[in-house]
Amino acid sequence: MEVMTKARPIKGFSRLSKEDKIEEIVSLLQDPEAGISLLKSFWHDDANMQKLFEEFSENTVSNYFFPYGVAPNFMINGQVMMMPMVIEESSVVAAAANSARFWIERGGFHSKVISTTKIGQVHFIWEGEDDIIQQHFAELRTLMLQKTSSITANMEKRGGGILDIELLNKRNDIPGYYQVVASFDTRDAMGANFINSCLEEFADVLRENLDLNPKYGGHECQVIMSILSNYTPECLVEAWVECPVASLKGVDDSTEPEEFVNKFIKAVEIAQVDIHRAATHNKGIFNGIDAVALATGNDFRAIEACGHAYAARSGSYKGLTEVEVKNNIFRYTLRIPMALGSVGGLTSLHPMARFSLEMMGNPSAEKLMMIASAAGLANNFSALKSLVTKGIQKGHMKMHLLNILNSFNATDQEKELAIEYFKTHKVSTRKVSDFLDQIR
Amino acid sequence: MEVMTKARPIKGFSRLSKEDKIEEIVSLLQDPEAGISLLKSFWHDDANMQKLFEEFSENTVSNYFFPYGVAPNFMINGQVMMMPMVIEESSVVAAAANSARFWIERGGFHSKVISTTKIGQVHFIWEGEDDIIQQHFAELRTLMLQKTSSITANMEKRGGGILDIELLNKRNDIPGYYQVVASFDTRDAMGANFINSCLEEFADVLRENLDLNPKYGGHECQVIMSILSNYTPECLVEAWVECPVASLKGVDDSTEPEEFVNKFIKAVEIAQVDIHRAATHNKGIFNGIDAVALATGNDFRAIEACGHAYAARSGSYKGLTEVEVKNNIFRYTLRIPMALGSVGGLTSLHPMARFSLEMMGNPSAEKLMMIASAAGLANNFSALKSLVTKGIQKGHMKMHLLNILNSFNATDQEKELAIEYFKTHKVSTRKVSDFLDQIR
Repeated sequence: MEVMTKARPIKGFSRLSKEDKIEEIVSLLQDPEAGISLLKSFWHDDANMQKLFEEFSENTVSNYFFPYGVAPNFMINGQVMMMPMVIEESSVVAAAANSARFWIERGGFHSKVISTTKIGQVHFIWEGEDDIIQQHFAELRTLMLQKTSSITANMEKRGGGILDIELLNKRNDIPGYYQVVASFDTRDAMGANFINSCLEEFADVLRENLDLNPKYGGHECQVIMSILSNYTPECLVEAWVECPVASLKGVDDSTEPEEFVNKFIKAVEIAQVDIHRAATHNKGIFNGIDAVALATGNDFRAIEACGHAYAARSGSYKGLTEVEVKNNIFRYTLRIPMALGSVGGLTSLHPMARFSLEMMGNPSAEKLMMIASAAGLANNFSALKSLVTKGIQKGHMKMHLLNILNSFNATDQEKELAIEYFKTHKVSTRKVSDFLDQIR
Repeated sequence: MEVMTKARPIKGFSRLSKEDKIEEIVSLLQDPEAGISLLKSFWHDDANMQKLFEEFSENTVSNYFFPYGVAPNFMINGQVMMMPMVIEESSVVAAAANSARFWIERGGFHSKVISTTKIGQVHFIWEGEDDIIQQHFAELRTLMLQKTSSITANMEKRGGGILDIELLNKRNDIPGYYQVVASFDTRDAMGANFINSCLEEFADVLRENLDLNPKYGGHECQVIMSILSNYTPECLVEAWVECPVASLKGVDDSTEPEEFVNKFIKAVEIAQVDIHRAATHNKGIFNGIDAVALATGNDFRAIEACGHAYAARSGSYKGLTEVEVKNNIFRYTLRIPMALGSVGGLTSLHPMARFSLEMMGNPSAEKLMMIASAAGLANNFSALKSLVTKGIQKGHMKMHLLNILNSFNATDQEKELAIEYFKTHKVSTRKVSDFLDQIR
């Protein structure tokens, strides 16, 4: 990597004022003054509001805008709603809206939460005998519950808390390796801080009671780490759509229901047997889920890690959806674990996250799981529907047309002409460029 | 799911004016007028700039702000740079900066691109004999190259294009299932539109030349779908840090280098053998990678799908990093595939994405792979460093403290007092609430 920037090592950057941070950053640009103006142009006009965003994260000097959109006509379990979506990809909101519109006339989306248990682990090394620690683990568990009682009090008032604490012997994997695995119900919170706080207390119990304790044989107990797991296969939701095959009439101008179903089934099967297709198939699901996660202040990296690891649980990485036709009923199902919160963290601090939640009637975490899974299924269905009929590029490039026009600095009038022209012509960067050359 | 919102089915929503869309949306809120003000308060002051964001995606009515921050002191292959990061999680930028600061004094990050090949597939069903189609595939390949010559001309000028087109027999997986697998070099573009456009032409070649053609036995050729793969194991980058074990002195106040390395190795091993830990371990990597992807207008769902599927390639889902100590040199490595673009799409349209790229010296796609992988390794290292020493909560909650204070509407003076107090006390929502009660 050759020399690229004029950046220099800086001590104490995080303690600089925002203005001084900006000075340092824009000194890397060709036109520092323009850089300052740009950064400032994205500040919120209300200084207090701007401060809130700056306090979300260290070294914040401006805001990065994502388009905030909605997909109307989502019917989920009989309830009509508008889906708030935050996403940079031009076709995601349109695809979700298209799917919602299609299914609202065919019974809408159905969704149910299967379970909501979350998991945390204390990983430790202890060279003693398995039967001794197993024998005494009930005592350690009691101490762990006692030690976390002040942390869990509030969560218990809300009906959640620690569900179970188990000891797992993992010495076949790594010499001396044990886990304390705890399961939690964190109600409407994502619960990461709650779980991690509990686990760190559990680790202290091990350090104070197991380490070098003659009762357990006097072995050293080395706690490696204490942390929640983002893999929550027991925090699981299922969304599906279903209708008689004949009702799929109109899914595409030139494809009959039977042919559509036949190709759709093949497409879903292919995502079961081919990792290259499976990753892309699932990516389409996360287009929808992440857009809702972003719009509601949830942590999309946690959701992605969980969903993809779940896709690999059988030993090969597979598509997360299943399709069946039984008694002439087409049924398409997504089953996916995800840990979402509808209170706490950014969900209540980010004004637009609050806005999104209110728009959806302030759903519980379970309802938000149902909503997000329906969005994921909607986006995946829309992608497959295009793929097995007219192809993905037609719709995608239609949505991307304005971006291409903007990249050529098209005027409003040129845009109008282009939109009209490309209603009947294939969109590509090259063709848009040629069209603009012609009319300019 | 009980009734939650007053939303109703709407036809032609996307064709409504922005004002009418907003009317419809805010009618779902308790205070519609406040909703309108909020949405408008997030519009950019410059109407043209606002229009640009609205044209990114359908039904855009406002912008969702993410804090835009930087992590200074990243040294990558000897070059110092500032890392632009866009992320909602309070501790990610601080963790990256911490890691960068630690490693700049120990040789910095190293990174190299191993390969940059991307993949696309045409999936089709054809019931003919394998040897016939294999025998004639060279002709079909020639037709495919001819048919895409106008699409590939520009890409070839830039040194990229179609690298290879192969036929794969997948009939063992699904009866009659074949794939045309093509590999591409898309230079500095992410290349999704380019690849998909080529693939749709390949599919037309199959429809026009293979379907019912007596030369191939007259069998029907049913194209199921044509689409790039987000799984790009051959678009691969490796980032690593290394230093003598003794140089890890100072990694933590109370942990000596040998003990640190010992626990660190165990932590990495655990992510190799335990899916629950692996998902969380990798999530920490994506915290850094996605923050850079977001800041540069890249598609983080594609990156996530690819990286996680790669983590599962061996048959069990594993951590993406490896650690070794050889001749007293500690070396920690992340190897991950990712398809990034530094031109095209939002990278050049979003003003803050352009800003990010300029700040980094307008890197090529390969350089951006090196930069993003270093960010991923930095965040994962920082997380493991905390986990195996003082625990994750201390640093995380310190960064989250301002969010908690904001959730209790703390004044500036209260915040100052709280920051001082919690320098020496454990942060939790409960404790912050108690502290505020005391001083109020």
